[in-house]
Amino acid sequence: MGSIEGVEQNNGPSPHTLTIRYDAETDRVLIIDQTRLPHEYIEVELKTLADACYAISSMQVRGAPLIGVTAAFGVYLSLRGKNDIAAQRIVPQAVEALAATRPTAVNLRWALTEVEASLARCEGNLAASALEAALELHAQDIKACAQLGEHGAQRLQELWDAKNERAALEGLPKPERLNILTHCNAGSLATVDWGTALAVIYKAQARGIPLHVWVDETRPRNQGASLTCWELGQRGVAHTLIVDNAGGHLMQHGYVDCCVVGSDRTTLLGDVCNKIGTYLKALAASDNGIPFYVALPVSSIDFSLRDGLTEIPIEEREAEEVSHISGLDDLGAIRRVKLAPTGTVVSNFGFDVTPARLVSGLITERGVIEANETALIKLRDSLV
Amino acid sequence: MGSIEGVEQNNGPSPHTLTIRYDAETDRVLIIDQTRLPHEYIEVELKTLADACYAISSMQVRGAPLIGVTAAFGVYLSLRGKNDIAAQRIVPQAVEALAATRPTAVNLRWALTEVEASLARCEGNLAASALEAALELHAQDIKACAQLGEHGAQRLQELWDAKNERAALEGLPKPERLNILTHCNAGSLATVDWGTALAVIYKAQARGIPLHVWVDETRPRNQGASLTCWELGQRGVAHTLIVDNAGGHLMQHGYVDCCVVGSDRTTLLGDVCNKIGTYLKALAASDNGIPFYVALPVSSIDFSLRDGLTEIPIEEREAEEVSHISGLDDLGAIRRVKLAPTGTVVSNFGFDVTPARLVSGLITERGVIEANETALIKLRDSLV
Repeated sequence: MGSIEGVEQNNGPSPHTLTIRYDAETDRVLIIDQTRLPHEYIEVELKTLADACYAISSMQVRGAPLIGVTAAFGVYLSLRGKNDIAAQRIVPQAVEALAATRPTAVNLRWALTEVEASLARCEGNLAASALEAALELHAQDIKACAQLGEHGAQRLQELWDAKNERAALEGLPKPERLNILTHCNAGSLATVDWGTALAVIYKAQARGIPLHVWVDETRPRNQGASLTCWELGQRGVAHTLIVDNAGGHLMQHGYVDCCVVGSDRTTLLGDVCNKIGTYLKALAASDNGIPFYVALPVSSIDFSLRDGLTEIPIEEREAEEVSHISGLDDLGAIRRVKLAPTGTVVSNFGFDVTPARLVSGLITERGVIEANETALIKLRDSLV
Repeated sequence: MGSIEGVEQNNGPSPHTLTIRYDAETDRVLIIDQTRLPHEYIEVELKTLADACYAISSMQVRGAPLIGVTAAFGVYLSLRGKNDIAAQRIVPQAVEALAATRPTAVNLRWALTEVEASLARCEGNLAASALEAALELHAQDIKACAQLGEHGAQRLQELWDAKNERAALEGLPKPERLNILTHCNAGSLATVDWGTALAVIYKAQARGIPLHVWVDETRPRNQGASLTCWELGQRGVAHTLIVDNAGGHLMQHGYVDCCVVGSDRTTLLGDVCNKIGTYLKALAASDNGIPFYVALPVSSIDFSLRDGLTEIPIEEREAEEVSHISGLDDLGAIRRVKLAPTGTVVSNFGFDVTPARLVSGLITERGVIEANETALIKLRDSLV
């Protein structure tokens, strides 16, 4: 269902189902409902603007790059079948509704701004123009992720070579594998395809580097346990699930060679906003001399911000994400259970900010750059 | 059921049910089954050595001090009703079985050694002597926890006074409360009564310091969400449940004034072994200039070890603690659900080691001491 057949191309889509796709024959926008994974695999159609907003806010689609592309299709859905006079009035409302679904990721705003710019230039049919813009962002995202994956894989190759050299120098047996720790799901499921952090993994695997991935379960929504384990399993990458508490212990004992995570927003100074808990892993990596890389498309960099800690709005989500959890019961039904005593007060911040000083490098489609203002200004100026 | 009535005495039991108690009238050893909390409150009787071993390994009782006391009662149960010749043969087997239930906490071995020493000195009935030793450890634990709670409360008083002074100096409104972050359950449920980290909280509350506790849910077994929230609720201490990933973010934003955790084993150099994830919180506290205290009875210090990272055995527990979770379903039944894809490989280390350099102080029944060799040698030498 919906999988893309054919020869894998270097920077094209991988031979797997896309998280969001447009079926031109039937004029349908289809997404994988990620709230049902890993227990059920279901594609659902987004028919309206409201469907797109709900898909983003309920996290049927999630991950900074993917919600940007979904929002772009949301604008198209809001305009489909409308005449241009009606459409002119609808655009600002649709953009506002989509922008309000999630506050932290900057790609959402970026994608909406791109679509608005296309519509402003448009002289023909607005709906057709919005669709064209969405498809362009869709293709761009696949390409950017594939490219950043290649750049990151080159860095993993260097780490693997260095690990082998160290072992040889010390007269130790050849290492079995390179151990990567990742947090949350910065995989193909967080983008249209390939992913960010996991694109690095997939491209390194394609080079023949023997990899093993430690997967943080990533409470409260467990995107690591449910999504990252699922997609690594689908693609045959060796991996082990751990609780979020375990990474420090593993790093202290030499079980982690490198951390690679994604980012929802990165500032001009190189501060990285990502899923809550990322900062704790960056601290542990720094304390143990382990490289900590962040993989991200340039579209997720917010060049207008400097200090991530004070300037990035951090989404607070509902208490029940913490006090309750869903899983598969013994009878095969998805069931929600309560974990905390009735009436327990809960706080649920969705993201944290890792200061640039803890980041070894930013892996982008334009290459791996240092997480500092000089490197980011140079990148920004190269984009014009 | 089983609650102790009467006026609260300073260093005696608090007016709450004890986690383990001996009913002299009926000769019964009763525990609170903590695997059912917070959804069900049940006392169960330990009738045999096997019951005691199972209670410890299945974590019906858990927490370093409590499993020590439970093991002591386990020796008594193995000898009850036996003549002294049979009892002589049983003691070593019983001690071995109990010592094998959990590998990390040192109190377990310590308590068993105390009981064995009593039995070696004994000239009368061995079973009676074992019971006497267990009751002695039971009383000692209550007293030690109450005392260390007082010492820690004094430290919180100083932090509260300092917070108020800072606010006054900066012309800010009087602070509303002192915010403490704790990990896992180092509460009355981890000891016979009072707790270690939470004894500090309870004694500070009794002094009238307005407290609020951030409770790490503490995956994989969620002792924070289920046990710490439950007992803080029972004792009227304001608290908020958070995922383990959240503490760093809260510390970065000034929402945490102090961390207080327990310990399963502390070395002569001051390295602290505690529930997995403690190290990550200590790193965040250090990075944000927040005091990080460890509350522990002297019985949990292993003066024979120096380097915690290389010398303390770390328990690995079963995969299903991570891949599955239990909670209360909508119909009020406790139900287990699966969180990860079928066949996912899991690693489940139960503890980690926080290096002494990250510890602001050790709160013991002998006072608050620095986490270094000089202070610990002085403490050790004062015990003789």
